Amino acid sequence: MKQQILQMLCESDDYLSGEELSRRLNVSRTAVWKHISALRQEGYRIDSVTNKGYRLLQKPDRLSAEWLQRGSRRFVGTAVEVADQVDSTNEALKRRAAAGEPAGLLITAEEQTGGKGRFGRKWASRRGDGVYFSFLLRPDLPPGSIASITLAAGFGVCCAVREYTGLDARIKWPNDVIIGRRKLCGILTEMTAQSDRLDYVVVGIGINVNQERFPEDVQQKATSLRLETGRRWDRNDFLLSVLQKLDEVMERYLISLSVDDMNAFKSLCATLGREVSVQRGKETLTGTAVDITPEGNVVVRCADGKEREINSGEVSVQGLY
Amino acid sequence: MKQQILQMLCESDDYLSGEELSRRLNVSRTAVWKHISALRQEGYRIDSVTNKGYRLLQKPDRLSAEWLQRGSRRFVGTAVEVADQVDSTNEALKRRAAAGEPAGLLITAEEQTGGKGRFGRKWASRRGDGVYFSFLLRPDLPPGSIASITLAAGFGVCCAVREYTGLDARIKWPNDVIIGRRKLCGILTEMTAQSDRLDYVVVGIGINVNQERFPEDVQQKATSLRLETGRRWDRNDFLLSVLQKLDEVMERYLISLSVDDMNAFKSLCATLGREVSVQRGKETLTGTAVDITPEGNVVVRCADGKEREINSGEVSVQGLY
Repeated sequence: MKQQILQMLCESDDYLSGEELSRRLNVSRTAVWKHISALRQEGYRIDSVTNKGYRLLQKPDRLSAEWLQRGSRRFVGTAVEVADQVDSTNEALKRRAAAGEPAGLLITAEEQTGGKGRFGRKWASRRGDGVYFSFLLRPDLPPGSIASITLAAGFGVCCAVREYTGLDARIKWPNDVIIGRRKLCGILTEMTAQSDRLDYVVVGIGINVNQERFPEDVQQKATSLRLETGRRWDRNDFLLSVLQKLDEVMERYLISLSVDDMNAFKSLCATLGREVSVQRGKETLTGTAVDITPEGNVVVRCADGKEREINSGEVSVQGLY
Repeated sequence: MKQQILQMLCESDDYLSGEELSRRLNVSRTAVWKHISALRQEGYRIDSVTNKGYRLLQKPDRLSAEWLQRGSRRFVGTAVEVADQVDSTNEALKRRAAAGEPAGLLITAEEQTGGKGRFGRKWASRRGDGVYFSFLLRPDLPPGSIASITLAAGFGVCCAVREYTGLDARIKWPNDVIIGRRKLCGILTEMTAQSDRLDYVVVGIGINVNQERFPEDVQQKATSLRLETGRRWDRNDFLLSVLQKLDEVMERYLISLSVDDMNAFKSLCATLGREVSVQRGKETLTGTAVDITPEGNVVVRCADGKEREINSGEVSVQGLY
């Protein structure tokens, strides 16, 4: 009910009378007033004028599970939980997954005290600055699919950022979204599997939204939507767009990835065509990234003319941070 | 010290004098006597005759961490823990792995109260009947490697059974060892991974050793070393041989699997050349298994003449249980 009132307020450009709300929802005007009060408690600024009714002036700069549950999705965030503070959204969701949580749950948090990226690297996750979230998949796929699930997630975020902000976001293989030379988004996919079958996959995504500055050590490497556009963004609205795009991409991906999907992915991949070096244990390979395979590997044409498929390891791309 | 005394007693066909033991180990005869007493406490039957010394008559029919730690191994069971009873050795080892246990630990138990196989199936694990164990790997490999780690484990067990017992053990792809039409050994590999890198792999193996009968529901499908040979087997000695073979195979596998290794594997694979049906979601494929790929997939030549690579799913082989 509260969700329906919120939705009507969002969709209306003008004041909505309490009478109309009560009629359309078939509840008393007192009930409408109670839900309006509850929304105000949550930080929504709602104007009320006698004889005109209610109007939404501003959404709170706090993540809202109700807002994020809008729309209908099949895979990503079919249920949404907003935490104030967690160690990391991946850790929180892995605990739930291990206890049998069904696929679809998304956990997001205002703040992560132990946000992390690949290789155990710290991911700066200050309160209110970015969006940090993880969602749970349980696809009936072999374990090797994790690489391409990560790619699909990066592709989804990249497309959502392009559509929502108009910025020229690109994918840095395997798991970053960048703008220019700088990192906007990181993805950490974690999973458990039994023999030849995935058990669960937790996809964790951090996107820099309203940061004006970063910790010293990543200042030169990171960017945010705000730094790129000079304005603040509504995190709820932005995150909702990202979730909708991710759901669309995951649905396509988990059913079957078409050649067109791969081509769309490659057209946004900043790694292709660039000089790369790959750290494999003690060995360092250098060459040009020439292709991405459907399994999510990068094909590197090495100095000796041979093409090698790289499926893991630390890839540095010349010309990107 | 106790371990050294045990080893000397094992290697000797005759009585070993307390004097000789104390001289070779450079300890007092009282110390030797204390260790002998401790071994007796553990169930070793050790005869002692005045003026002749000590002689090992019988090892206990209890798994012994000391026994299983004999020899030098690099990957499988570099540390061994014997539990009396666990829920399942995989669960016990996964808890340790999650807490940061380094690679190499092996956990075995006299009894599992919740032994399990693929698809959550129960694995009968009665006290003293079989060997049930799990070992921890942390290979620097991509997640898709789990399939071939399982194959390598099955190959190792199959070779060990052949060498130790002379029985014609074979591999049933992807994760069983069979004798004739019946299952001798099951393998359940579980893992966690982050993006493109395995975190840990727990390989759980159950081998039927001294069972004379099985629960009703698997009576027609299962066999044991005892049922095949008509005699009891020493579980410590048998398990030690299995561990040594597994270590040898894993060492080769984790470094690089040669064409010869694959050919050796295929020569023991009962699935090849047989009619198989594969359940893939709602679809059932039928055809002949014609090859195993280095990634661990089975290649099935279907009725329409096309060859398909199967990387997961439930495979039924005609003519095997």
